[in-house]
Amino acid sequence: MAERVWDRFLTGQDRAHVGMSDRRPIQYGERPALLLIDLYRWVFGDRPQPLLEAAKTWPGSCGLAAWEALPHLQRLLGAARAAGIPIIHSTGLEDEEVVQWAKDRRTLTADQMTPEAAERRRRRYQIVDEVAPLPGELVLRKSSPSVFWGTPLVGHLTALGIDTLITGGESTSGCVRASVVDGCTFRYQVIVVEECVFDRHQACHAINLFDMDQKYARVAPLAQALEYLDAARARKAPPDEMRVPQPLTV
Amino acid sequence: MAERVWDRFLTGQDRAHVGMSDRRPIQYGERPALLLIDLYRWVFGDRPQPLLEAAKTWPGSCGLAAWEALPHLQRLLGAARAAGIPIIHSTGLEDEEVVQWAKDRRTLTADQMTPEAAERRRRRYQIVDEVAPLPGELVLRKSSPSVFWGTPLVGHLTALGIDTLITGGESTSGCVRASVVDGCTFRYQVIVVEECVFDRHQACHAINLFDMDQKYARVAPLAQALEYLDAARARKAPPDEMRVPQPLTV
Amino acid sequence: MAERVWDRFLTGQDRAHVGMSDRRPIQYGERPALLLIDLYRWVFGDRPQPLLEAAKTWPGSCGLAAWEALPHLQRLLGAARAAGIPIIHSTGLEDEEVVQWAKDRRTLTADQMTPEAAERRRRRYQIVDEVAPLPGELVLRKSSPSVFWGTPLVGHLTALGIDTLITGGESTSGCVRASVVDGCTFRYQVIVVEECVFDRHQACHAINLFDMDQKYARVAPLAQALEYLDAARARKAPPDEMRVPQPLTV
Amino acid sequence: MAERVWDRFLTGQDRAHVGMSDRRPIQYGERPALLLIDLYRWVFGDRPQPLLEAAKTWPGSCGLAAWEALPHLQRLLGAARAAGIPIIHSTGLEDEEVVQWAKDRRTLTADQMTPEAAERRRRRYQIVDEVAPLPGELVLRKSSPSVFWGTPLVGHLTALGIDTLITGGESTSGCVRASVVDGCTFRYQVIVVEECVFDRHQACHAINLFDMDQKYARVAPLAQALEYLDAARARKAPPDEMRVPQPLTV
Repeated sequence: MAERVWDRFLTGQDRAHVGMSDRRPIQYGERPALLLIDLYRWVFGDRPQPLLEAAKTWPGSCGLAAWEALPHLQRLLGAARAAGIPIIHSTGLEDEEVVQWAKDRRTLTADQMTPEAAERRRRRYQIVDEVAPLPGELVLRKSSPSVFWGTPLVGHLTALGIDTLITGGESTSGCVRASVVDGCTFRYQVIVVEECVFDRHQACHAINLFDMDQKYARVAPLAQALEYLDAARARKAPPDEMRVPQPLTV
Repeated sequence: MAERVWDRFLTGQDRAHVGMSDRRPIQYGERPALLLIDLYRWVFGDRPQPLLEAAKTWPGSCGLAAWEALPHLQRLLGAARAAGIPIIHSTGLEDEEVVQWAKDRRTLTADQMTPEAAERRRRRYQIVDEVAPLPGELVLRKSSPSVFWGTPLVGHLTALGIDTLITGGESTSGCVRASVVDGCTFRYQVIVVEECVFDRHQACHAINLFDMDQKYARVAPLAQALEYLDAARARKAPPDEMRVPQPLTV
Repeated sequence: MAERVWDRFLTGQDRAHVGMSDRRPIQYGERPALLLIDLYRWVFGDRPQPLLEAAKTWPGSCGLAAWEALPHLQRLLGAARAAGIPIIHSTGLEDEEVVQWAKDRRTLTADQMTPEAAERRRRRYQIVDEVAPLPGELVLRKSSPSVFWGTPLVGHLTALGIDTLITGGESTSGCVRASVVDGCTFRYQVIVVEECVFDRHQACHAINLFDMDQKYARVAPLAQALEYLDAARARKAPPDEMRVPQPLTV
Repeated sequence: MAERVWDRFLTGQDRAHVGMSDRRPIQYGERPALLLIDLYRWVFGDRPQPLLEAAKTWPGSCGLAAWEALPHLQRLLGAARAAGIPIIHSTGLEDEEVVQWAKDRRTLTADQMTPEAAERRRRRYQIVDEVAPLPGELVLRKSSPSVFWGTPLVGHLTALGIDTLITGGESTSGCVRASVVDGCTFRYQVIVVEECVFDRHQACHAINLFDMDQKYARVAPLAQALEYLDAARARKAPPDEMRVPQPLTV
């Protein structure tokens, strides 16, 4: 089997144990939706910079990893749009009043920042132009790592009859991981597109991909996800038909 | 700062980035509960064996890591009982009818097993004797990675006025991680006791501890958690008073 | 339009206002499940007795209303089994350790009861024989009014691809109402079978049916639900196919 | 006992049965929050009009019942502010993309409306000036009957250590009822202030108050709630202290 990104982070015992397993991968289902998680300015900054450089002005930056994922994300998003499947974006909830998770960890408040830092913070939850939502695409604003918590997502997916979630976004070890665990918990078939997720820490990116692939999801190459979306388009499942459950007349 | 278990798994860039951060650790609160996750037979087997040996008969085994955590778990549990704080155990839900998460990944069904394998599987969710629940301690049976999902846990915690969750159990990268993310999401102050959690993969144990410490919880040494529980006992917050919210007479 | 059970409880203004509305009824969908709520001994007692008589020994009794619904429930259950749709029962969670909702309202504890009363209470959550679950039917044990809360129900329904919930059980104003509101909230198409739900209070039965019909569900006659289930059977959607989502091979 | 608003809607048997009960009322706790539900333009219209008149231009109107509750709501809100307790408002989520609950029931879409009707609909979720949120008060935007579903409310309450919810708003039989059931389910002590809730249907207002008082909440007169808030103020529990859980230093 081809080498995976996580192999070099595993110990010898880890690899030997994985070699004993024969689990089948998670399957793709019939009614997919695309879920793009937290592709906002805060993790990109305004231009590509190496992580340690970028972090000086954008403390949430994921460095070059974010920018390198962007063309892959654009291809994935384009294919999902072409296939006419539901597309869901998430970003942070702009509300100073909700008590944040892990809030007390921050050492700096808004009024202690420079005007420039405050201005960057103000723009932090703007989804970047390259993958900006179109009218008709749902944007969920969340106040927790998982896009399922504190949002109407699960009801929305039920209304659309979704069984499969194709996911991309950031961070692999944070909001992507939390959302994937919840997606699996709610019994969706979850696909993580490897080229389309990124993280600010290399070891965490690799090991969280491994964890998700072992337990909750299929970590798939972009080419495979594109092939699947292309097949979905060929079946011509028209989006209108997906949105309105066909009633059985009584 | 002392070396942490995850340091050797991080890349140089990861370590440089972490060095730039100055986040405060999660604080301990005033009304703790102890949460012990999935300390059942399936991950221990019937006796200590190295992982690769144990996995031949107990496919879910965590090998020696499980048995090495056990005396630490007993100390933590003893201290929580002495302090009179609420204690909550979780295990798997024994119900063949609920569709399991990631169900289709299993290659072997119960009737394809040897009688011995089926017998081991039958005992899989029995909490091991060393940390068995006492009467009065809640046991939640769950059908998802997180102990919060599909159980009444969050209502139970609200009724008891809990603000802090002291956690131990397994696996670090699976049900512990999922429960800790949810605990943080529901705005509890979560403490992960390092000696009291374990995993079947060494890299995953280390990196998931790092992830939790960075984002959701305080990964604390057992000695610190014991000191905190001892202080809680000294304050003599009697368990009865904790269970019945003191009404304001109107 | 035919008279409905709630008409005589509405005021003149209420009726005039309803007459101004032209909402369409909730539609039946394509993938139904049957949800039978809390058909346990506690609300039946051991034999049919008028409410005020029954309540002396069975404080949770719904009197004759329960027994009169029973043959209708048996027909509904039989039709659902014939149609091969998923069937889900709920009952109470037998766990003295979970803090109950509205717990402090009870004036009598188990040890203050007569042996006979304690024995009746011990049997309280046993689903009555007439509608007892068969192997392969899911039984959820809940600790809240709604069968959705603190149970894996929503994941189970997603795994099965359900879009429609046919509901019966008790009480109309309690666990049925709470479950129907949640079912609608999670975006299922909810049908309440009028002859198959009952309550200990007549006004509450009628007005809660009205509320559900106005806002969350279709309150339908049994004959219509049977016709729908019969059509589902005729389409021969085989239960096996419903349980395993057909993967798209990649 | 004094007559209650629901008495005249109950049948003789209902009243006889209620007379056999001796449940204790729900108690007030120690850490209250005020929850004001859906006090938006859609149910008020722009001026007081009788229901059947108002419904011609404001289809969601609750008629004079809304306007009569308003001064009571202002007194309750003023007392909560004086006591320094957390205050939470809810309104509808303005998002055309989320599939609505019971969506297909509407017979008219936005583009079939007159400009005046569309303009009223555009303002529908604006909280009316008389009880408008102040800075520092949380406003939750919901897409379901209950304010708990699809919002971060339960995490917010946990972070604040709340045990008691004082509730007002509309409609008694809709979003108030759904939120109260969830509040009870999550094990909060819920108080419904009778003068501060209203409905477009008289029978539903009365019977839903009865249901909540019987099962989930204390339906209390405004005077009692004000007395309780006054006592809370006298104890001078300062809001700042409530927001930041006092850490136990380790």
